[in-house]
Amino acid sequence: MLGLSSFPTQTMPPPITGLFSAFLRRPLPHNTQLIYNYRRHLLHSSVEYPLTHPIYTIWASNTSLGKTLVSAGLSMSFISSSKKKFLYLKPIQTGFPDDSDSRFVYRKFSEFFISKPLPFSVYASNSVLKASIPAANQILGSNKDSGDEVIKKVGGLQNVQCYEERKLQGSETSNESELFPVSELVCKTMYAWKEAVSPHLAAEKEEAMVSDSEVLDMLKRCLENRPGPGNEDSEIMCVIETAGGVASPGPSGCLQCDLYRPFRLPAILVGDGRLGGISGTISAYESLKLRGYDIAAVIFEDNGLKNEVPLLSYFRNRVPVLVLPSIPKDTSDDLLSWFEKSQTVFASLEKIMLSGFQERNKRLHEMANKACDVFWWPFTQHNLVPEENVTVIDSRCGENFAVHKFDSISEQFDGCASWWTQGPNANMQIELARDMGYTAARYGHVMFPENVYEPALELAELLLEGVGKGWASRVYFSDNGSTAVEIALKMAFRKFLSDNDLLNENVNGKSIDLKVLALRGSYHGDTLGAMEAQAPSPYTGFLQQPWYSGRGLFLDPPTVSMCNGKWEVRFEKSGHRCFSFSSRDEIFETSRDSSVLASLYTSSILQELQLIIEQSHSHIGALIIEPVIQGAGGMEMIDPLYQRILVQECKNRKIPVIFDEVFTGFWRLGRESAAEMLHCQPDIACFAKLMTGGIIPLAATLASNVVFDSFTGDSKLKALLHGHSYSAHAMGCAAAVKSVKWFKDCKTNTNMIYESRLLRELWDEKLVMRISLLSAVRRVVVLGTVFAVELLAEGANAGYASTYASSIVKRLREDGLYMRPLGNVVYVMCGPCTSPDTCRLLLEKIYARIYEFEQLKNEKSASFAA
Amino acid sequence: MLGLSSFPTQTMPPPITGLFSAFLRRPLPHNTQLIYNYRRHLLHSSVEYPLTHPIYTIWASNTSLGKTLVSAGLSMSFISSSKKKFLYLKPIQTGFPDDSDSRFVYRKFSEFFISKPLPFSVYASNSVLKASIPAANQILGSNKDSGDEVIKKVGGLQNVQCYEERKLQGSETSNESELFPVSELVCKTMYAWKEAVSPHLAAEKEEAMVSDSEVLDMLKRCLENRPGPGNEDSEIMCVIETAGGVASPGPSGCLQCDLYRPFRLPAILVGDGRLGGISGTISAYESLKLRGYDIAAVIFEDNGLKNEVPLLSYFRNRVPVLVLPSIPKDTSDDLLSWFEKSQTVFASLEKIMLSGFQERNKRLHEMANKACDVFWWPFTQHNLVPEENVTVIDSRCGENFAVHKFDSISEQFDGCASWWTQGPNANMQIELARDMGYTAARYGHVMFPENVYEPALELAELLLEGVGKGWASRVYFSDNGSTAVEIALKMAFRKFLSDNDLLNENVNGKSIDLKVLALRGSYHGDTLGAMEAQAPSPYTGFLQQPWYSGRGLFLDPPTVSMCNGKWEVRFEKSGHRCFSFSSRDEIFETSRDSSVLASLYTSSILQELQLIIEQSHSHIGALIIEPVIQGAGGMEMIDPLYQRILVQECKNRKIPVIFDEVFTGFWRLGRESAAEMLHCQPDIACFAKLMTGGIIPLAATLASNVVFDSFTGDSKLKALLHGHSYSAHAMGCAAAVKSVKWFKDCKTNTNMIYESRLLRELWDEKLVMRISLLSAVRRVVVLGTVFAVELLAEGANAGYASTYASSIVKRLREDGLYMRPLGNVVYVMCGPCTSPDTCRLLLEKIYARIYEFEQLKNEKSASFAA
Repeated sequence: MLGLSSFPTQTMPPPITGLFSAFLRRPLPHNTQLIYNYRRHLLHSSVEYPLTHPIYTIWASNTSLGKTLVSAGLSMSFISSSKKKFLYLKPIQTGFPDDSDSRFVYRKFSEFFISKPLPFSVYASNSVLKASIPAANQILGSNKDSGDEVIKKVGGLQNVQCYEERKLQGSETSNESELFPVSELVCKTMYAWKEAVSPHLAAEKEEAMVSDSEVLDMLKRCLENRPGPGNEDSEIMCVIETAGGVASPGPSGCLQCDLYRPFRLPAILVGDGRLGGISGTISAYESLKLRGYDIAAVIFEDNGLKNEVPLLSYFRNRVPVLVLPSIPKDTSDDLLSWFEKSQTVFASLEKIMLSGFQERNKRLHEMANKACDVFWWPFTQHNLVPEENVTVIDSRCGENFAVHKFDSISEQFDGCASWWTQGPNANMQIELARDMGYTAARYGHVMFPENVYEPALELAELLLEGVGKGWASRVYFSDNGSTAVEIALKMAFRKFLSDNDLLNENVNGKSIDLKVLALRGSYHGDTLGAMEAQAPSPYTGFLQQPWYSGRGLFLDPPTVSMCNGKWEVRFEKSGHRCFSFSSRDEIFETSRDSSVLASLYTSSILQELQLIIEQSHSHIGALIIEPVIQGAGGMEMIDPLYQRILVQECKNRKIPVIFDEVFTGFWRLGRESAAEMLHCQPDIACFAKLMTGGIIPLAATLASNVVFDSFTGDSKLKALLHGHSYSAHAMGCAAAVKSVKWFKDCKTNTNMIYESRLLRELWDEKLVMRISLLSAVRRVVVLGTVFAVELLAEGANAGYASTYASSIVKRLREDGLYMRPLGNVVYVMCGPCTSPDTCRLLLEKIYARIYEFEQLKNEKSASFAA
Repeated sequence: MLGLSSFPTQTMPPPITGLFSAFLRRPLPHNTQLIYNYRRHLLHSSVEYPLTHPIYTIWASNTSLGKTLVSAGLSMSFISSSKKKFLYLKPIQTGFPDDSDSRFVYRKFSEFFISKPLPFSVYASNSVLKASIPAANQILGSNKDSGDEVIKKVGGLQNVQCYEERKLQGSETSNESELFPVSELVCKTMYAWKEAVSPHLAAEKEEAMVSDSEVLDMLKRCLENRPGPGNEDSEIMCVIETAGGVASPGPSGCLQCDLYRPFRLPAILVGDGRLGGISGTISAYESLKLRGYDIAAVIFEDNGLKNEVPLLSYFRNRVPVLVLPSIPKDTSDDLLSWFEKSQTVFASLEKIMLSGFQERNKRLHEMANKACDVFWWPFTQHNLVPEENVTVIDSRCGENFAVHKFDSISEQFDGCASWWTQGPNANMQIELARDMGYTAARYGHVMFPENVYEPALELAELLLEGVGKGWASRVYFSDNGSTAVEIALKMAFRKFLSDNDLLNENVNGKSIDLKVLALRGSYHGDTLGAMEAQAPSPYTGFLQQPWYSGRGLFLDPPTVSMCNGKWEVRFEKSGHRCFSFSSRDEIFETSRDSSVLASLYTSSILQELQLIIEQSHSHIGALIIEPVIQGAGGMEMIDPLYQRILVQECKNRKIPVIFDEVFTGFWRLGRESAAEMLHCQPDIACFAKLMTGGIIPLAATLASNVVFDSFTGDSKLKALLHGHSYSAHAMGCAAAVKSVKWFKDCKTNTNMIYESRLLRELWDEKLVMRISLLSAVRRVVVLGTVFAVELLAEGANAGYASTYASSIVKRLREDGLYMRPLGNVVYVMCGPCTSPDTCRLLLEKIYARIYEFEQLKNEKSASFAA
């Protein structure tokens, strides 16, 4: 499994350059080396671990609470019957070599074994993989004669082959009777520094930094399940011991609870049995929960204070709390009798860990089946989804899912962005999570009408200063894009009726038929009112929506895309004429207002409006458009010049203008609102999706004061009588406040160009062009966080129900990129904070898979021709 | 201001008994005493504090980190100019009298003052209010000659008048020149125990318990702003010092961060500058955030580790971090020179606290105004909402809001339950908040179709085992009740067309008009599709929804209510005949199936259906009803017998049956689903609102397998093509999992009758009856968590736009009960966990206000007659 990830404080490795092509079934001689590099490169930053045996992380609420004693005790307890292997990992060790937790585990285990031999033999080993120069020098100084050797200096950290091992002879075995001992203890320190301070200080002082991604990569390699010789069938348990407390910084300064988050391994928390220890233990537990960890058990040393009582009450008995005997304070004590005394506790802990592992595995294995049984997925023909196609998502970290598959957990980049909502990177997700906890605790949800509370007010202010700047003065909250659009239509109609003195017409018996003007291919939501504003399609047919009557009047807009490396505008109304541009930017220039195309557009619009007015007895009560890109309609980019002219013509006719920015808003297209790209303003605009950073539903309909004024009066009956239970719910507003601020702040979003309020270009221009040059590709649309490819397809392969792209999508999922096709359109979307390096890797994968698809197609036609 | 609250571990005090009447303008001689008791009773458990001066809580991430030094340092810094008063409160003190933090502050301040006198004099005092007997005996033993005296034993805690004071003579004052010193230091210990252990252990050991509500009540009284003589204009600052760490248990065992939560005072966190201290400080900060606290600053003792650097990075510089000089370890050191050295740090902290206070106050004062400027509230005629009517909600804790008003924060019971969504009590809210943080961190939101993740699966399983038990087999997720209903209609229509072989009819050009059968007065949501299923009303008129065409066929159902103390069924179709019942339970009995009324209902339904079929060329594609109570239609209870017969008749005709349980589901009416009360099952049912515990939007449409089957086939086009961006979003599902489990577990919900899966009766029967006997009352409906009163009103006073009830609602808000009227219907709702004692208090308030309303009305008519 390959996957991508961007870890909390990591910057992506530099992109590879030059030609490439990957994952072809048959090797292509000219670029085999590149494929190799590419795979390595991707493997480097993906997270993956086996689910064939339990792996737990040992955390503590503070330093010196006995994490290493717990690890050692577990190793003793676990290797008490044959055919077992215990892997102890200490990723970060400071104070080395004086302090070495892996050596402690190795030695205590050995001493314990020697004092109470097991019937079988055990190989025990301890090693250190990398150390800072001062730490490495210490070992070299002290251990020179033991064969340790510094191999290579890498960025201040040295590869050290500091390795010790011993065979612990079993009581019932002889040297001759066994080729290999049946059990094994493997202790490893991944990185060591000399100073006995926090890792971030030691790393800085000893000029031996290691990036978070390197730590995770090393950890991943250490976790790979490679049974030792003769141990193929052994049971394995692995523990990873962290350094200090749960939120102690790692070597980069990133808090360890954040650093290890992409793995999200189940946790054992070593608590504090002392006075004040209840508080520290609970707070540490909460810090772990706030990062999405599951805590299997809490264990601490008895200090006679019965701290377990309030802890169990806090946990409502749902997390086991274990109490270890008091640890001898005498430093000369070899602790062996303490370990002896503690064995029942460790046995219980081991049992909890094993059964927790089994339960998790069992659940992960049954989830796909159960999902097929109880879910009714939206937009899904269940008959076409066999159980094996169901993706079991264990968690997400920033832009990536962690997926359960083939007895392992691995990452996939969420390339369809959870239906175009994806926003946070890993850092932002952590802060959002804290804000969500805070907001639920501070407000839960409170009543909105006639009330005010901070998150709703702050968000309304941010929206009016941001996406509504210059025109909007009121914010109406609802739950999703569809409700936001229904509200917008109600607003527009009232404004229209009010402006045209038609408010009382219907009351007087004269029936007024209000229609909405829209563009063909647009999509505004799935509730009836929003659907009525769409052109007839599979969504609106009698089979789907027997109540759809079609209250829209539709224009065919000119579309924009890159075809064969060139940006083009195509306009059906001008006989499918095609106009080329030197760059995408040129298309957005307002100087085009005086172009030939502008006159063509104007006359076409006037002509169509004239026709509509003549043929229909209806009033056009509103114009609704998705500015710049029509999402669900197939990621079609519309010529902004056309939309600008259309808006102006409607404004001239006192037809209220609605921008449906549910998809396009909040930097989806590279700017806070797509309206900015059109250089014109609506009367009403709808926002949802990315507004909350993509974690929780919330929508807002913004309106100008003149629209608002058409609802004011003496009677409640004149007010806008529309609302939902969770109008302006505090958690949605708080998530939106965090997200809107985060996205636009160049301190938090490195993609934000300083002061320009523009996202930098995320997609590699040359790669985009090369993809557009592939013969299987009809067009490419790329803007902001969106990259879309329409495959050249005909007949049944085109359109919404097409499964033409599904083979590409399936392969890309294998490459660690999760996508969903829109018929024969393949698209990938990232968050506003996703690094261009990540985007480049995605494009490389897409290129490779479309290229492969094209080759297979050519092969087929060739064989057909033959 | 009066208010109600139920604190985390508190059980409400026993209800008062007997006659009462409260808050009448003119005293009623016969029950003055009762009013007095009533007010006292309410005051007892309400939370309120002034906003005239800063009040901060001092927390620490562990014991012994110097909270008291910070308090003392602040007192010295604050009282450095004239006319200032510093109030130091230590609510919980153990190890007393050897340890007394209030005495420490008092003494250190005095010593410091004497060593460096200020130009003016200061009165300093220290007192202890209550102590356990062992602790009190110690003071009596040691201080007998100083005049201290034990007064009264109250529940193991004694009132002790342990008081010391001194006048600290200013350097520029003489005894003669001033009547009163201009500055004042007041130190108070509220409760003291002898043992130097955690308060919950000391309280238990010394048999001196104090309930959480008593602690809060005492704290509230200590916080009341009563300036000392001569100090009327003084500036005041108050700090409250907690005991141990943020999550250390208080005397009841309730964690202190939970105990003080109803006040939600701004916090100062004393962090840990030692090795491992970064982690402890961050975790403590997160525990406070997870309870909705705002932390103004973090301060800790320097240990040379530069812990402030990673802390500031964690806070992204948004929380100030202050570092105090290293504290002398020598116990003989009088610390005066340390305080001297630390004065600049304390001055900075004081400045942060003062400006934080000013900012908070400024914001609270401007919020109502800004809200009127930028919000567009749903269902609200803005012209009718003057700024002074806007409720500024600072936070919520369980069932109560904290509201900003008149320079104070006080509590109101949320009696309209945030639009019928309110669920959690304070305990549940804390756990929900933790779950929300966890879920946001673990998942954020992930893509649903073809995928599975734990919260969605667990919720689907819970729903099918709970509200869908016995009939439902599929769960379709959406965002709110309105979308759930639109989805339900799409499901029902497909099933109907499929059952009646009409699927291809429309395709063949024959137009089929599908209608929905519904009850008059029902309400199913605000999107167009849901509105089409409603009878014409102000909501559906041309002014509001020009696209409404009315696709419903409506029956007039018989209604149930208590009138003048009697439960009655009224049925318009039988000439408004009225049928009496001995109890509400009798109305729900299935034995009524063979009653005279049953035959009456059957014949009436058959007759109406016949008429519909004759008069209309439409097909009835679905029946939709709100089982038992129609919410938005005015809290009308419908005879369950009628609904049962109607469902059966529709099932006989192969008309799919939809239960809209958006309002009624999840114990709103006392059972998990209202369907249980009807003793019949739907084909499709909609749930939302309370499902998530009332904190976040999520909806589910449940369907039977036969309904699901009408969407399966070979083509995606046959699938249900409806979905929203946040379909089955993880946070909503996780909130729902927590809530559904919490409500039905008698360990967490004390209202749940063991194993019966029934809520106990929450509303006092006698009081309900007395309210129904009031002459101003037309009818009462009471069931589960709902209590509703329709006022006797005629003409413009009746109906949705009526403001008839607004004076009662306004008064009740003054009483600490937040309600919104539905026209001339006044209702109050509680959560499924709200204690019957709280409900009783609410009814008492309502009784009193309606009684008062009635008196005024009678007075008016009397004066009119005269």
